[in-house]
Formats: sequence, structure tokens, C-alpha cells
Amino acid sequence: MPSTKRKIINDPVYGFITINHPLIFDIIAHPYYQRLRRIHQMAMAHLVYPGAVHTRLHHSLGAYHLMCQAVTELRNKGVEITPEEDVAVKAAILLHDIGHGPFSHALENRLAPGIHHETLSLGIMHQLNENLEGRLSLAIDIFTGKYHKPFLHQLISGQLDMDRMDYLTRDSFFTGVSEGVIGYDRILKMLLVHNDELMIEEKGIYSVEKFLIARRQMYWQVYLHKTVLSAEKMLKKIIERARKIYRKDDPYILTHSALDYFLGGDFDGVINADSMERFCSLDDADVTFAIKRWSKHPDVALSTLSTNLLNRKLLKCTIQAEAFDQATLTKHTLDVCARLGITEEEASYLVFTGEAANTTYNLVAEHINIYFKSGDVKNISQVDNALIHQTLSTPVKKFYFCTLAS
Amino acid sequence: MPSTKRKIINDPVYGFITINHPLIFDIIAHPYYQRLRRIHQMAMAHLVYPGAVHTRLHHSLGAYHLMCQAVTELRNKGVEITPEEDVAVKAAILLHDIGHGPFSHALENRLAPGIHHETLSLGIMHQLNENLEGRLSLAIDIFTGKYHKPFLHQLISGQLDMDRMDYLTRDSFFTGVSEGVIGYDRILKMLLVHNDELMIEEKGIYSVEKFLIARRQMYWQVYLHKTVLSAEKMLKKIIERARKIYRKDDPYILTHSALDYFLGGDFDGVINADSMERFCSLDDADVTFAIKRWSKHPDVALSTLSTNLLNRKLLKCTIQAEAFDQATLTKHTLDVCARLGITEEEASYLVFTGEAANTTYNLVAEHINIYFKSGDVKNISQVDNALIHQTLSTPVKKFYFCTLAS
Amino acid sequence: MPSTKRKIINDPVYGFITINHPLIFDIIAHPYYQRLRRIHQMAMAHLVYPGAVHTRLHHSLGAYHLMCQAVTELRNKGVEITPEEDVAVKAAILLHDIGHGPFSHALENRLAPGIHHETLSLGIMHQLNENLEGRLSLAIDIFTGKYHKPFLHQLISGQLDMDRMDYLTRDSFFTGVSEGVIGYDRILKMLLVHNDELMIEEKGIYSVEKFLIARRQMYWQVYLHKTVLSAEKMLKKIIERARKIYRKDDPYILTHSALDYFLGGDFDGVINADSMERFCSLDDADVTFAIKRWSKHPDVALSTLSTNLLNRKLLKCTIQAEAFDQATLTKHTLDVCARLGITEEEASYLVFTGEAANTTYNLVAEHINIYFKSGDVKNISQVDNALIHQTLSTPVKKFYFCTLAS
Amino acid sequence: MPSTKRKIINDPVYGFITINHPLIFDIIAHPYYQRLRRIHQMAMAHLVYPGAVHTRLHHSLGAYHLMCQAVTELRNKGVEITPEEDVAVKAAILLHDIGHGPFSHALENRLAPGIHHETLSLGIMHQLNENLEGRLSLAIDIFTGKYHKPFLHQLISGQLDMDRMDYLTRDSFFTGVSEGVIGYDRILKMLLVHNDELMIEEKGIYSVEKFLIARRQMYWQVYLHKTVLSAEKMLKKIIERARKIYRKDDPYILTHSALDYFLGGDFDGVINADSMERFCSLDDADVTFAIKRWSKHPDVALSTLSTNLLNRKLLKCTIQAEAFDQATLTKHTLDVCARLGITEEEASYLVFTGEAANTTYNLVAEHINIYFKSGDVKNISQVDNALIHQTLSTPVKKFYFCTLAS
Repeated sequence: MPSTKRKIINDPVYGFITINHPLIFDIIAHPYYQRLRRIHQMAMAHLVYPGAVHTRLHHSLGAYHLMCQAVTELRNKGVEITPEEDVAVKAAILLHDIGHGPFSHALENRLAPGIHHETLSLGIMHQLNENLEGRLSLAIDIFTGKYHKPFLHQLISGQLDMDRMDYLTRDSFFTGVSEGVIGYDRILKMLLVHNDELMIEEKGIYSVEKFLIARRQMYWQVYLHKTVLSAEKMLKKIIERARKIYRKDDPYILTHSALDYFLGGDFDGVINADSMERFCSLDDADVTFAIKRWSKHPDVALSTLSTNLLNRKLLKCTIQAEAFDQATLTKHTLDVCARLGITEEEASYLVFTGEAANTTYNLVAEHINIYFKSGDVKNISQVDNALIHQTLSTPVKKFYFCTLAS
Repeated sequence: MPSTKRKIINDPVYGFITINHPLIFDIIAHPYYQRLRRIHQMAMAHLVYPGAVHTRLHHSLGAYHLMCQAVTELRNKGVEITPEEDVAVKAAILLHDIGHGPFSHALENRLAPGIHHETLSLGIMHQLNENLEGRLSLAIDIFTGKYHKPFLHQLISGQLDMDRMDYLTRDSFFTGVSEGVIGYDRILKMLLVHNDELMIEEKGIYSVEKFLIARRQMYWQVYLHKTVLSAEKMLKKIIERARKIYRKDDPYILTHSALDYFLGGDFDGVINADSMERFCSLDDADVTFAIKRWSKHPDVALSTLSTNLLNRKLLKCTIQAEAFDQATLTKHTLDVCARLGITEEEASYLVFTGEAANTTYNLVAEHINIYFKSGDVKNISQVDNALIHQTLSTPVKKFYFCTLAS
Repeated sequence: MPSTKRKIINDPVYGFITINHPLIFDIIAHPYYQRLRRIHQMAMAHLVYPGAVHTRLHHSLGAYHLMCQAVTELRNKGVEITPEEDVAVKAAILLHDIGHGPFSHALENRLAPGIHHETLSLGIMHQLNENLEGRLSLAIDIFTGKYHKPFLHQLISGQLDMDRMDYLTRDSFFTGVSEGVIGYDRILKMLLVHNDELMIEEKGIYSVEKFLIARRQMYWQVYLHKTVLSAEKMLKKIIERARKIYRKDDPYILTHSALDYFLGGDFDGVINADSMERFCSLDDADVTFAIKRWSKHPDVALSTLSTNLLNRKLLKCTIQAEAFDQATLTKHTLDVCARLGITEEEASYLVFTGEAANTTYNLVAEHINIYFKSGDVKNISQVDNALIHQTLSTPVKKFYFCTLAS
Repeated sequence: MPSTKRKIINDPVYGFITINHPLIFDIIAHPYYQRLRRIHQMAMAHLVYPGAVHTRLHHSLGAYHLMCQAVTELRNKGVEITPEEDVAVKAAILLHDIGHGPFSHALENRLAPGIHHETLSLGIMHQLNENLEGRLSLAIDIFTGKYHKPFLHQLISGQLDMDRMDYLTRDSFFTGVSEGVIGYDRILKMLLVHNDELMIEEKGIYSVEKFLIARRQMYWQVYLHKTVLSAEKMLKKIIERARKIYRKDDPYILTHSALDYFLGGDFDGVINADSMERFCSLDDADVTFAIKRWSKHPDVALSTLSTNLLNRKLLKCTIQAEAFDQATLTKHTLDVCARLGITEEEASYLVFTGEAANTTYNLVAEHINIYFKSGDVKNISQVDNALIHQTLSTPVKKFYFCTLAS
């Protein structure tokens, strides 16, 4: 009897993850889901934090696990969640990242320009829904926010959703960065639903503050760490350069994978059944393989970036509060031109600047509501003596400058 | 050969603590030090966090361990610390809390009014120094800040000293409150000495921010948790009440321990060899034992407080941002007078109000200096985009109100 | 509405423990249960493992938590457990140690000779049942094994009960001895019920082996560690000596607690309402307080043992595979007589020998059944290539010898 | 000044790993070492344990970290280790796995038949030594056991070497299998050198027992888990099949990497500068990329295995104590022939049987010596009441049978 089939999966982060519904089994068994095993969750962060090699599959399983706990907690508090909603919200969180391509965010919008991973996720969910005879319809409605119980959508996408809760927990676990540890289990215990919206009990305020601060710290210490940033910019530049010089008759640029379709001009910017299938055939191995090939390509910019990324000889990266001036950029560019005998256009892949930003808490676009015993509801930024205030909600912008080390 | 004697002690927090110097062995073996085994580090916090039953001895061993690591780190960075300074700074941190009495801070200033634990620590260190033939002299100079290398004193007492680093780590470990977890090992790696002052490397900023936020959260979530606060106020009130009604000819008030000396009027407020020895004979067991006896005392206020504390029937405690008005106090007081048939004076031990305050970071009295690669030194509150700013450095005052539950 | 009252308790071992039933609240609030806060789980083990200061209350809460998980797991596998059985089995595990006296096993049978803690636990449960208007009747039936579903009793008392599962997990956590870590969560997932008996799924064999080996290692490395053993023998000898020389007209022997009743000859060996109440008034503080008083008693044996235990100057203890010969005992006894100027009878409290035994797995009295997919059931010792075999099931006897260090 | 350069690396397992010697920096920066980032430590184990995606680079860094601790411990015990030996033994452990190819053990001996990874490691070390102007000579002498202090070699390769200590610790950490947790820090504290041999202090016996049992459990629960075994056998069969049908004029079999050299018959079984360089250009990405290509190859056996491995549709695997009979094999083979329309030869890649063996402790080839305070040295299997005895030292053989699920 499939309905009683039950499997437990060891997870170093949470202990055990339990799978016990046929739809969940079917999703996990699908090749598109299994593909996530071959996509790093944190792209190039492992060049600084060698443990950070966990996968998108592991992250989405973890988010699913937290969703199981959240549903149990809310039901214990009297919130009605039907069996159909239960499995739908779990299916939706499992699939929330199904549209990620190789190296996740680091290459987002680069392989298939103009296409965001959420769009792809939704497209793939629709296609899976056909294969699964409509069993994903409710999951899709919740995912897109059309369902009449907003709190279910908020569990998937919101300030305190299971996605963020898992990625902070998992990324801090695998990097070993204790600053990112959050009290996810306590936050889950503090969840409640009021007027169909997800809220936090009054006594959970400190845990939420901790969560926001942890996120801020992970951004600066890990996600935007200057070395990680350098490596991920190199990855982007490699793809850009390859696209730029791509010629179908150049055997050295060929990747022998669907990358050729996306880099060689065949992709017309529209996601349809064909382009989606090609996209879903890609994973980190294709890109890594291509970079290994390109490390011997005659184009100096492409081969230099490729070789150096493979051997972790990264561009030297500086981060500062003010924008870098044009003179610095020019000086380094000319220096690289001279050293490598390349043009300024070519050197622009090896010397460049830009900005990175992070907002700890967006007062406008997002909000975390605190429910007080008195029945009051306040945005966390309006609670007395809040740590989360105007200052923290101002986006922090920093500027980076990358150049080929001499 | 005593100099090569070496012992390792299991610590669930750090793994293993190593003891390898005769002076350290001698301090640990001393009855005054062993007495710290019988004093809870966190007084009554275990009534809310049942794991928080660790002792002052365990904390001071932990701080000693962190000191061992700090010395190693600083030496690796080229800071000169002589073998004599090495053992002295370790001896000093081991002894920094030797003057604590029963239930530590919760009864500080109550058993021996007007005497702070630092005064007692210093007095006891001087006495031990006599026993140990002057081997503690350098440790005392460092402890009192007289030694010419201020960073050694700062390792014992400062914003980032080994005391705070251990108590936050240990208290969050034993309570299970993940919000208090700090990256102590990373902070230790970031320590450096510049102009004889202890500082933090630039890239340690986020770890220090985390440390300050963790401390803030431990204050509100644990140390000043309303139930913990209630229990600790009850403990204080019990001692105050016992002192108030103490009569040497009342067999039911007698404690059969040195408490009689401190409560019965014999102690004249002066710490000398005699009073210090009596103080050092006290530990949690004496106070607990006295409370068990007093739970049957005819005085209603004393017996009610004692019985209720033993059985965890705590005073109902409310905490809020504004002061409580006199009317509320009067109303509850009269109610308790009526219920128990006692006077207002007696009821004042069962109904009372007051304030609790916490400052995350004191801009004036304390400072954490950040050392930049450029050679600049900045106070952490002046670093760009600092989390630690004016707001956090304003003391947060809250008001509590305790009353006998009906 | 009491039925929806819900409380979560932080536990450093398991994260959070949830209380959500009125009967469980009532048990925990009872003074007899709160008394367990003042009884160390591991008696004197903290003299070697300073973190091991956790309490009987914490252990029984932990066992309750595991029971909650076990019930959930079994129900998920289709085992019928009614709501009444659910709360009864949880109440029973909460109360399984309620009859422990000061310092638990270390003084078992010494304060109230001839009375085992299980007898007291049952007696107290019956009395609580009266207070609670019969709400404990089913819990008592399960506890005593009279209930018609044996697996419920086995969850409380058996080779793989929640008691052992918690004490191994908790004791290894607080001592920091990684050798005692067991995979309790995996074992819980492997539990099943077949023919009304508790069993383990085939693929749980390695976890069970690990559990048995961990227990063996905790015995030799912690519970029977020679220094722990020495301290606990000293504790026993102190009580024995006090009882021996107890005279009601000796003010220095008086303890001012119920200890006087149990040491002074008033206790007639029968547990009735009166003696039970006196017993339940005792905790570690009474014994510690008495030892502090006795450290100044004129009786040399009593004061020597008391002072030395307080100051951790423990008897020197040797453990070996063979019995110690009479000559060694005599030599040390005479030496101590000479040094302290005491009789041989008095010296027998300071120099003594005995044996300690441990059986990893008792083939006869106990059994762990493994359920194979084929439907077969085998005792774990009969599984192919079992680690648990004849050798491990032979009791290992070791002999100890304690003497006053010179 | 390069000699004072110092870097710390976050490791979720040990906290921080410190690099502080130019030679260590040079080794880590070498492309051959960086290549280990692209080789999974545990091949296909992540199909069962999704966290087990850590790399050979991470493992060798971890083993290096343990070596740093071991050197410090031994020096603290008075063992002389010169600065040259110190860095050499650390360099040797860093490089001990440098010769591993794609998917480590799972493909060992398959890509370059007849070549063991130790041979390759040594070959690569010699080549690096040339690049590094002889700075690896001492490391190589220690690695090959030629150096006159055998304990240094034993730290790299022996029953209790840093390699095993790290892989057990790391693999249990990343899989989340608590049964494999060992007390590595305690074992390190128990190491000593006697007669130039590495030994364990008497009181470390239980930790060593735990280590051996943990290894045994990791073998059966993880390394030889039937699903992991199935996936790794599929990987082997894919390579075997590809080699079998390889034809240089078949564009669909081409891998566009050095795999073509090793599969297409150009490799003559001799490791020389050329073949080593080709081997060192390979990593997991090449094999994964090839499998993705082969999943569309017209050869049914190759494409079936490739597609199914990518999508985690693994061969059904049974493990038992007795050999499988020929009848079962034939029946399944014919069934697969019929279903897929292939020959028996082709089906032999999809239906096969074999044996897996594990010896917990090899009494003959290996030994762990215990050093007693008395000066005696005993093999751990000869200690009283040893857990490690004849039974455990008998190799345990199990038989597996894999077939295409219907």
C-alpha cells in the first residue's frame, strides 16, 4: 500500500527527515528534482568555506522538513490545515527552487538571460503537474499566492519562510560560521496564524531579531565575502566572455551540452517545452566541464579566467564603502592590457567594479508581525526598544573592485 | 616531577581543559576554590531552564581554558608574554570569581551588605597569596590593573574578557538558548595587541557584533526573564525578611551555619580574616537548607516565600516599559494583607516593584577597539554601517511588578 | 481552558520539551516532583566531570520527551495507543524516579535501609494518585506491568526503555564523554510493536549495538571511574559512620533535618505515610549540610571523611581485575590507625575494598528482539556476526581498594 | 614576510584550521591539490546520505588539522619533533590522497587499471618535489616509511592515523550518522611515543574500542549500505561498459576529456609524466559529464545504467550472509534480456553478484599498542575484558546481488 510507505533520510542538520506521502515520493523521484543533487547551493562559497558544498536538493529537503514541523505546530495551536493543504504546501516548498540552473544565483540570468529562477520554477511545476495528473494544482495555487489562506503562501515565501529558515541554518552549518546560527526550532514554536496571516508570538521577538541579525551577518561574512564574490564574478565573466566570442565553427568553444544552445544564440528568450527541457538538462558538471575546456581556449580573457578559477587563483578583490574612481579602473586595466597583450575590451573581463547591497529588514516591502497577548499586532520594527529600526532597514551598499593579481 | 604533571578535564562545552602548571593545580585544590562547586553559576535560572545548574567552578575553569587559548593566539602573533605572565594571567582568571557567595549575583550585597564580590575576590587572593608564598603576586597586580601591560588585565576584565566570553558561551550551552551562542573561537583568533591594548582585527567585526547582540539577548531572554527575576527577587526577600525578624533566641530562625553570623548582627561590615573565613564557609547548600527550615517558620511572609520558592510557586511577575503606578501596588498589597491576614509591612515582601536595566554597549565606560590593516584604530561604534550605535548604547530600562498569585 | 494550555521548556539536549496535558502539568507542579530539582542525577560524578551536575528532574523530563516521540513514532506505524494510554505512559515515565533520595543511587539503601527506590516510587505514585483523584491509576498499572499491553511497560522499563535512552544521552552530554553518545533518535525511529512486544526493525541493529557498547563504556569510563567510585564510597561511609555513632544527645551529630529520623533509629524500616513524607522532605542539600557540620565532629573517621569529601581530597582508589589480598588491607589499615591515632574499627571507614560489576548485555534476564522483514524475530545476540555475544554478556567484575592518601 | 603569513579556514567539523607555513601554502595552492575540490570524498554515498558531498580536499585539510594537534600533544609529552619533521609530517598527510581520481575508491583501479591511488600519490609527490626544489624530500621519506622515526609514518598510515581519524569523524558528521562519531580529541590526548612507536595510554582503551566499533558500524551502515553499494557498482559497470564498447570513431562514446585516453586504449598501464598529467586533469565533473552523454548512447546497457544512475533509479540490491546461487543469477539475467531485448553479455552489466568484506581489527597485519603505567605494552586485543577479540578480528563477508528493478 503506497499510502503507508515511509522513509527516513539522515540529515546532519536536523537529524532525520521523514517522507510519508505518495506525492512527495513522486516529486523526489523525478529526474528534474534529482538534478538538484548536481547543483551547489552556494556556488563558489566552498572556495573560502570548504564545507559549503551542499546541494539545492539538500536545501529543499531541509525546507520541506521545516514545513512538516511548522504544519504540526500550527495545527497544535488550532489552525486548520486540511490534509490536502498539508501535502500541497509541502510539495510547493520542495519545488520552490526547481528552476535553479547551474551554480544557482551566481549564474542566474546569465545562461538564460532575462529568465528568473522563480519563473522557471513555476514553469516546471506546471509541466510536472501535467505528468502528475493535476496533483500539484493546489501546490501551484499556494506557491503563486492565489490560494485563499495567505499564511500558507507566507510559509513558502515571506520574511520568515521555511526557505530562508533552512538556508540560513544549513549554510551556517556547512560553512561552520556560527554567526549565522538561528534558533529555527524556537521560531517554529512561536509561529501563529491571526486573520489568516502568519505571525510571531510576543515572546519570540528575540529569536526573530536574532534571525535578522544572523542573516545580515551571513551576507557580509559569507555571501558577499570578498573572495567568494571574486570567484562568483569570475564565473559570470567566463559565461559572458564565452557568449561574446561564441562561434559555432569554433571547436574549442563548444561545450557538447545544452550550454551550446544557450550561449550560441539559439535560445530566443522564450521558455517553452523545448527550451525548458534543455535548461533542465544542465547542472554544475556541464559548466565545470566547459570551464575546463575553455581553460585551453586561445582567447586570453576566457582561458585566463577559466584556468584561474579552476586553480583558485582568484582576481584580487577590494570592498569599500565608497565607489572606486575611474582612474583606478583605468590604471589597472592598462596594466593588465600590457601584461597580457590584450585589448581594453578583453581586459574588461579581468578588471571591473560594481556594487553589492544588503538590507537587513525592508520596512516597506516586507514585514514581520508580532502578535501580543493583548490582541495587538505590531510590525517588529515598531516594538519598544527594537533592535530592528530605521538604521537597519536602510540598504547597505558596498563597492567592489576586482583585478588580475600581478 | 611536579612540573610535568598534566591533567585533562572533560568539558561538554570545549572538549578538554588542560592543567599543566603546579600553581594552577594548587589553586584548584584549595578548599576555597572547591567551594565554588557548591555555588550555582546562574542562581535560580534553572527554574526556567532546567539545564542551567552549572557551577561557578565550572565557569572559572572555562574562562581559564579560554585564557590558555588567548595566550597561545597572541604569542602566535608575536605578542611577548613571558612564562611568568602566562601563569599569572591564568591564575588571575581562575580566581576572578573566588569571592562569590551563595547564589552568586542573586544574593550579592545581601548576605554581607556593602561588600561586593570583587572586593572579596581580591581579599581572598591576598590570603591565598600568603599561603602560596607570594606566588600570586603577579596575578594580583594583573587583576587589579597595576601591571604595566594593560592587555593582560583586559583579558580578565574588559568588554571582551575571558569571563564574559565563557559565561555567555556556557550559559547559552546549559540553558539551551541558541540566541546566546557566540563565536568565541573566532573572536579569540581575531584578538591582537596594539600599543599594549587588546584589540580586534578588522575582519572580526561581525563576530564582535554577534557577541554584543548575544549578550543583549541573553539579558532579556534569560537573566532578566520574568520568571527567573521573580525567583531571584524571592530569594533576596527571604534573606531580607530573615534578617529583619532574626532573634538569637528564636530556634526556628537559626540556620546552624555561618548565615547566623551574617544575619544575626554579628557581622560589622568589615572583611577581616575571621569574617572572610566565615563567608568562605557558605555555599548554596546553607541557604537552601535555611529556606527549607524557614518554610515552617511562624512568620507568614518568611514561610510563604520559602515554601513557594522551594515548590516553584513563584510570585506572579509582570514586566513593562513604564513604571507601575502606586494604585496597583496598593491594591495588590491590600489584597494580600486580607488573604493572609498580615500587615502591609509584611506584605511588602510579597508585593513589590522595581526596575531592571541593560545596556548592550556602553559608549562611555567601555570600548572595543577595532584595528584596521591601514593601521587605524576605531571604536566599534564608529565603524561604517555599525550595528552598534547610539540606540544600542542607551540603557534599556524595564519595570517589574511581583505579587503573590491568588 | 486548561486542556489547551501548552508550555515549552528549553533543553540543551533535545531542544524543546513540550508539556500539553493537565495531568502532566499537575505532576510537574507537585512539591514531590519539584524536589527532584535538588537531587543530582549523577551524585559525585561532577568531581571528575564538572559538567555533570544535572538533576533527577531534568532526567525525568528528558525521558518524558523521548516517550512523546516514541508514542508518535509507534502511532505513525499503526500501533494503537489510546489518548488515555498516551498520557498514562507519559505520567509513568515522569514519575519513574520520584522515589529517589539524596544523591540517588550513591546513597540508595543507606538512608532508609532495605528500601529500594522503585518501592518508594510506587508508594509515592499511589499517594499522588489519591491527591489526583485516581487519574494515575492507569499509569500505575503500566508502571507495575499489570496492563494488558506489555510494550507500554517496556517503554518505561526494559533494555531499550526511555529511562536508559535518556540517561545515557544526558549523562554523556553533561559529562562531555563522546563515547556515551547514542543514536537515540534513530533507535526511536526503529521501534515497532509485534505481538504486543516492543521490538527493533532489522536495520536498527547497528544503532542498538552502539547503544549497548555506549552503555558499557559509560560504566567503565564514568559511572565506575575510580575517582567517582572513591567519592561515592566516601559518601556511603559517611552516612554509615554517622549512623553508627549517632546519639540523640550529641549536638554535633544532629542534622536538623529528617536525616535525624533516618539515622537516629526512629525509622522502623516500614514505609508508611509518615516515613514517606519525611523521606520526601530530604534532598542533596540536607546531606551536604550535614557533611559540612560533621566535618567538625570530634569523631576522627567521620570528620576526616566529611572534610576530605568537601575539599575533594578523595581516598586513593585502585581498580584491578583480581581481588585485593588481606595483607594489603591490613597494612594500609594499620598505617592509617597509626597516622590518625584511631582504632581498626574506625579505620575501616577509611580503608576498604569491594567489587564493582557490569554486564553489557544480560542474555538471560533481558532481551532485545529484532524484527526481520521476513517476519522472523531474533534476539540480538543471535543475529549473524553479532557484536553482542557470549563474551559481552559475561559480567565483568573488577575490584576496588580505597585508602587514605598519605 | 612569508614565514609569518597565517590563514585560518572555517571547518564545520573542527572549528578552525590554521595554515602558517610557506610549504603548506604552496602545496594547497598547487592545481593538483585544488583538483581535490572536485572529487567527492564518498563517491555515491550522497544518494543515501544527502549531506555526504564533502570533498577529498576537505578531508585532507582535516587530517592535516589533526596532525597539527597530534604534533602539539606529543611535544607536550616530551617527544622530540624537529621543526623540519613537523612540517614534513604535515605536508605528507596533506598529500596522502593526492593520487585519488574521480569518485575516489569507487572508481579506483577502473580508470587506470592496475594503478593504486597510493602509487599515484607517491608519483605526484615526487613530481611536486621537483617543482618545490626538494622541499618535500623529508615528507616523502616519512610517507614511504623510510624515515628513522617510525611513529611519524604511523601518524600518516596506521590503525590510528590521522587519515582514519578524520574520515570517520568527517564522514559521520556529513552523513549525520551518529554511530560513527569517535572521540578523536580524546584519542589525540592519549597518544604517546614509546621506543619510537606510536602508542595509546592505558586510560585511552575505551576511546580506542569506540573508534574500532565506530569504524565497523560505518562500514555496514554507510560505506557498504546496499543502496550506496548499488550506486557505486553501477558507476563501475558504466566505466567497464564504456571501455568495452569504446571505438574512436563513435562520436557518442567520446568524452572530450582525458577519459578518452584512459578508456580508448592509449594508456599502456605505465605511469609516466604524460599519463600522470592526464590523470591529474580528471575529476568528478568529467565522469558525470560523460555519464550524461552516455545516457543517450545507443548501447542499451550503457545508456540504461547511465540514465538510471543520474536519476537515482538504482539497481535493486540484496545483501545476505550466504552466496547467491547461480539459478537466481540466471533467472534475473534472462528476465532482463527479455525485457530490454539484449544479450546475456550485455545483461551482465545489469545483473551481477559479488562479495563485500570488512574486518574490524586485523590481529595480524595491524596492531594498536597500549602503554600501561607499569611500563608494559600490550596489543589492545590482549587487554583484560577486551571488546576487541578473536571474533571481531575475523573478516565478515557478505554477498550482494544487484539487478534491474522491474
